[in-house]
This record gives sequence, C-alpha cells and structure tokens, in this order.
Amino acid sequence: MQNFEFYSPTEFVFGKGREDECGAYAKKYGAGKVLIHYGSGSAVKSGLIDRVKKSLSDAGIGFVELGGVKPNPRDTLVYQGIELCRKESVDFILAVGGGSVIDSSKAIAIGVPYDGDFWDFYSGKQIEKALPIGVVLTIAAAGSEGSGNSVITKEDGMLKRGTGSDLIRSRFSILDPALTQTLPAYQTACGATDIMAHVFERYFTNTREVEITDRLCEAVLLTMVKETPRVIEDPDNYDARANIMWAGMVAHNNIVGVGRSQDWNSHGLEHELSGLYDVAHGAGLAVMMPAWMEFVHSHDVMRFCQMATRVFGCQMNFEDPETTALEGIRRFREFLHSIGMPINFEELGAKEEDIPTLVDKLGVGDGKRAGFVELTAEDCAEIYRIAAHASL
Amino acid sequence: MQNFEFYSPTEFVFGKGREDECGAYAKKYGAGKVLIHYGSGSAVKSGLIDRVKKSLSDAGIGFVELGGVKPNPRDTLVYQGIELCRKESVDFILAVGGGSVIDSSKAIAIGVPYDGDFWDFYSGKQIEKALPIGVVLTIAAAGSEGSGNSVITKEDGMLKRGTGSDLIRSRFSILDPALTQTLPAYQTACGATDIMAHVFERYFTNTREVEITDRLCEAVLLTMVKETPRVIEDPDNYDARANIMWAGMVAHNNIVGVGRSQDWNSHGLEHELSGLYDVAHGAGLAVMMPAWMEFVHSHDVMRFCQMATRVFGCQMNFEDPETTALEGIRRFREFLHSIGMPINFEELGAKEEDIPTLVDKLGVGDGKRAGFVELTAEDCAEIYRIAAHASL
Repeated sequence: MQNFEFYSPTEFVFGKGREDECGAYAKKYGAGKVLIHYGSGSAVKSGLIDRVKKSLSDAGIGFVELGGVKPNPRDTLVYQGIELCRKESVDFILAVGGGSVIDSSKAIAIGVPYDGDFWDFYSGKQIEKALPIGVVLTIAAAGSEGSGNSVITKEDGMLKRGTGSDLIRSRFSILDPALTQTLPAYQTACGATDIMAHVFERYFTNTREVEITDRLCEAVLLTMVKETPRVIEDPDNYDARANIMWAGMVAHNNIVGVGRSQDWNSHGLEHELSGLYDVAHGAGLAVMMPAWMEFVHSHDVMRFCQMATRVFGCQMNFEDPETTALEGIRRFREFLHSIGMPINFEELGAKEEDIPTLVDKLGVGDGKRAGFVELTAEDCAEIYRIAAHASL
Repeated sequence: MQNFEFYSPTEFVFGKGREDECGAYAKKYGAGKVLIHYGSGSAVKSGLIDRVKKSLSDAGIGFVELGGVKPNPRDTLVYQGIELCRKESVDFILAVGGGSVIDSSKAIAIGVPYDGDFWDFYSGKQIEKALPIGVVLTIAAAGSEGSGNSVITKEDGMLKRGTGSDLIRSRFSILDPALTQTLPAYQTACGATDIMAHVFERYFTNTREVEITDRLCEAVLLTMVKETPRVIEDPDNYDARANIMWAGMVAHNNIVGVGRSQDWNSHGLEHELSGLYDVAHGAGLAVMMPAWMEFVHSHDVMRFCQMATRVFGCQMNFEDPETTALEGIRRFREFLHSIGMPINFEELGAKEEDIPTLVDKLGVGDGKRAGFVELTAEDCAEIYRIAAHASL
C-alpha cells in the first residue's frame, strides 16, 4: 500500500425532503447572501428552486439566482456568475443540480475573490482562496458533491480543463434520492455508468496489497449491479435510488481509491468523444471502458479475474484464467447494454473515420499516457477501434 | 434506507514515517502550545515521543507532556491533564497512542475551556466548546481517530460513560502502520476483533434496502478475515498491518453504518465483562459477539445467511437456511479462536456464577435493551450463559 492523505470534510445530509434544510445549513456555514446556481428549467418547473428560496428566506438569508448551466459547463456562464456575485456582494454559492452545476459553482467560487482571469486556475495555477459552496444534488453521477475537483469547458476552442483543491469542497451536500426520480432512464443509466467508471479507474492499479480499497471498490460496484436495473425498471424506486445516490458519493470522494496508483485513461479517451460529438459523458464511458479493458486485460489477467468473480459472479476457470477475465468484461458490457447504454460507435453516434482526429486531440504525440498500462498514440487508436466495433 | 447525516472532517495522513509530520500538521491546525498525551512507557522507550517532540520543535511549537493513560482511561488523569493545560496555556491536544489515549485527550479537550466538572459532559450535558486535538495512532482497534466519541471511566465506582460531538473529532490523524508492528499478537488480535465488532454492530439491522452499507460492511469484514491471520503469523507484515489500520478507521467513522438502525448490544454486554474482570475489550467481544449472534439469529435467518455466504464463504443451504446461518456464526467463532482470542468464559477468565451480577449491572430491570432484537434481563442472562459454555 502506498502512503496517502484522505480528507473529506463535507457534511452530507441525506434523505427525503432534506433540501428544505438548505437555508439552515447555509446559515450554519456562514452564508449572508447566496447565489443560487442551477441548470435547465426543470429545477424551476419542478418547484425545487422555489423551495430552496423559501428555505433560504426562512433562514433570513438573501439570494440572487443564475440558471442556464449546460452539460460540460462553460466558462462564459462562469464569467457571468462571477460578475453577478461581485455586484450583489454574494458570499456563498449554492449549487442546485448535478455535476455540471456543481463544477460551475466551484469555478465561480474561486473566481470571485481573484483579481485575474478564473481560467488561470484551470491552466495550472494553484487555488488560494474561494467562496464557500453548498450543494443540493439532483443527479447521481459525477460525485462532485463530495470531491475537490471541477471541470470547465472554454467555449473558444471547446477546451475542457480541470482544477482541484480542498478549498472547493462543498461545506454541505444535501442528497435527496427523491429528486432523482424524475430523471429519464437514459440519463439515470448514464449516471450509473459514470459512478461505476469512477470506481474502475481506481480499481485497475499496479499497487499490490490494497485489499481494503479493492473490497470497498467492489462494494460500490456490487451495489450498482444490483440497484441500477431496478431504477431502470421502476424509476420511482426510492430505495434503489438512495443506494445509487450514496454509492455515487462513495465512488468519488476517493475513499475507494486511497493507497494505490489509479488509471483514468478511459475518462481521458472518453473526453475526446464527448467533446467531438457532444454525447453524454456516461454514454461515452459505456463505449470506451470495456474497450479499454479488453485492450489492457493481459497486463494483469488475475486482476480482471478478481473483477469477474467478485463483481460479476463468474466462475473462475483455473485452467485458463484469461477466459474468466474476458468473461468478466463481456458481462460488464452486457450489463451496460441491459440498462440502455450504447456499446459501440454506431450506437453512440461516433464514426470510425474520426479516430485519427480523436487520437490527435488526445495530444499523446510520441509520448505515452501514464496509467495501469502506458498508452502510445497507436494504443489509443486501437482502443478506439475496439470500441467502434464492439458487440455483445 | 433511513435519512442520515454523515460528517467525517478529519484529515487522515497515512503511511510509513508520517508521524514525523505531526508538527507541520499541528501548525496547520493552529497549535501554539501542545499537550502531548500518551499511555505506557513503550511510546517513550521506542523513541516515538522523542520524534514527536522533535517534529513539534521543528515546527516552532512548544509543548508539555502527560503520560500514564491506562486501558479504560480514567477521570483522575483527565483532571490532571485539564489542570496542566490551564497552567501551561496549552491550546492543542496531541494524542499519541490508541483509543484510550485519544478518548482521554478528547475529555481533556472539552474540560479545559469549561468552568464546571468535565464529567458533566459524560452525564448528558451537550458539548459546546473544545480545544482542537490531533492524533498519532499506535494501535488499530478503537477507531477513535475517526470518530466523534469518547468513553471515560470514573474511578469512584468504576462507572464507564461516553460522550459524543463533532467538536471532539480529531483535526488530523496520522496513521503509520509500522508503529503497530511492535504490538504483541494478543493485543493485535484484540484490536482486530474490536474492528470487526464495530462493523457487526452496524451490520445487524432491521432497516431494509441498505445494500450500499451492507456491502461496505462486508468489504471491511472480508479484509479483516484475510489480513488478520497474516499479522498474527508475521507481526512485521507492513501491508497487512496497513490494511487493518485503515479498515479500523473505516469501521468506525460510520461510513459503514449510515442509513440504518444499529445494534450495539454486544458492546453493552461486553462492557460489564471488562468492567468486572478488567479483561481486554476485544477479548470480551470475542466471547460475547458470537454468543449474541446465536441468541438472535432466528430473528432474521436470511441476514445471517448473507453474512455466512458473503463474509465467511459458506455455501448456501437453500433447503435449510438456518444451518447456513449457524455455520456462519460457527466460522466466525473459529476465526476468533484461530487468531488467539478466547471464545468462552473459562478462556476469558470470567465466571458463570457472576452472571446475575453482570445482568444486574446492565440495569435492564423490567425493561428491554433496544437493538436488532430487544433484550430483557433474562435474554441477557441467556446470552451470557451461551458465552460461558461456548466451544468450537
């Protein structure tokens, strides 16, 4: 096991109706005037934003609001948010939405007290100060409610970049599974895929002797394998939603990833897909992750056998372990298909002839991408080709 | 799943040699003058206390020290600590040791800024203020490094009482598995038993649909089943020690217990045993927990089958599930025996004729103890009788 630090100071407030407590929690964490930041009109139409406003008012907290966050949140709205916060002397950002809204809120939070361009922090500059933020989560997927990370897309050139700091961890995150019940099946499945991918990126490691994090990874994966089909079948299944929502936090606050090297190449390969075709991140991962697994499985067949037997219930073939490893990957892809996810380029809406462009955008050049297996540009092209042609 | 809050703001610093960073972390969390609080002479003899002092000095932090914390930490030393801190204007408590040292440190931390008797907080009064504390952990067992709880024994009458508050959560906890390598096998096994018991107290619940916490519980238990025999066999196995040490934190910061009712009757029944005979808490749990399981198993046979198959690798007997449930309990007891734990009163040094005294001290009266199964005084007596006569 490697040395590590683990820090997850966010106060999580979980359960039905808990969003009505957002005013009290904002007050607890010192809010005087709040920016309510959200995405599409659905948060307004459903009455959620009104309930948030009432909760803030009841707590004696003033607010302004800014909606319109899109998937792959843009720098342009962040600039608007920063200006609004300064003009209105906002001292606390409340994100009401999923990962995109939270990431946009984090960007605003670091931009407000900074004299320069907030994009500096997405170009390598270290974060030194940020407004406090809080979260009312409406989508189980990104895990941003429990992480110290944010990814923003610069509209000029569609450049997607990330930043991270303990200073942008949410002070409190309210997770009400009932708020996710209105989410369409496709988006629910995309979220579930993202959650599983966050675990797999940590599961495939070259670090030996990390049984505790291995087992914690498998705990989340087993939960997702059980609960996801239930919410696809019955969107109103509160308990299944609840298990998935909490699993989504556990999957990404790094409790399942400490003490070990991690991979993240499936995420990297997917980013170029969703950049080029504007497909959902989870759908892209459903196509890329099993393809990446097939390409790298021979690097550590036993680790894939562990996944196959512990997560997907395969019988171990002791005479020919590789068949078990491959059977595990096959069952993962079959699972993704069963919950309505695309499994190849055609189903995703991607084109094989774009592979050179995708690889070019990755910017590997003559070098290699670090990870569980180091990847050359040609390796990446091959993984895209596997993804292009995948079938059940 | 039930509504819940989860809050674990401690910064965990894990790995070999990390205790040398305690000065830097104490400084980060505002320490000006520190009380170094510890237990027996072994922390001094091993040179650990000297290294802690050097780290504090290097960070420009003054200190005083107070050793002598015993297992089942006493109020008398807490009073000494409070007086010393006031006299020396200490503003930060650094616990160097295991659960007893940490619990004693927490008691001092709430006593210093309080005008009255610190025992008030162990008699129901709510904690409103506390000095910040930090931890250098030397024993994997109690989980106090990641919890907001403290248990202190009042010497006058040997009254054991607890308190809890987010205000007594450690600011940082340094976990170096190498520091646990000198621990004798018996104490190591006691610690491992305590860790498993912390999970089982949460595992046996009447709450339905908590797959994510079920699976997280099982992740810790499976890790303990794998790693504990390895450290008993080879005390210097760093990786096995590391897995156990982190599992000990995960087992008790409540990440494996949220969203569900919990039990804690095995702990309650054990407290009277260790009170009467001054036996190690873990050893008492090894005797009481399987006995409790045998007594309550028929309340939810399927939950015990889940434990048996998922944790102890039993084959499910679908024609007669109860045999699987009982086989799981049998394997748990066999496991405890294999790591050197006592499994009945004789091996523990307890006496069957004391059972009426033990039950009397529990103070159940004509009422019932709440939990997975509600227990009358006669139920408790029967569990003690099962424990008295247990065999492999």
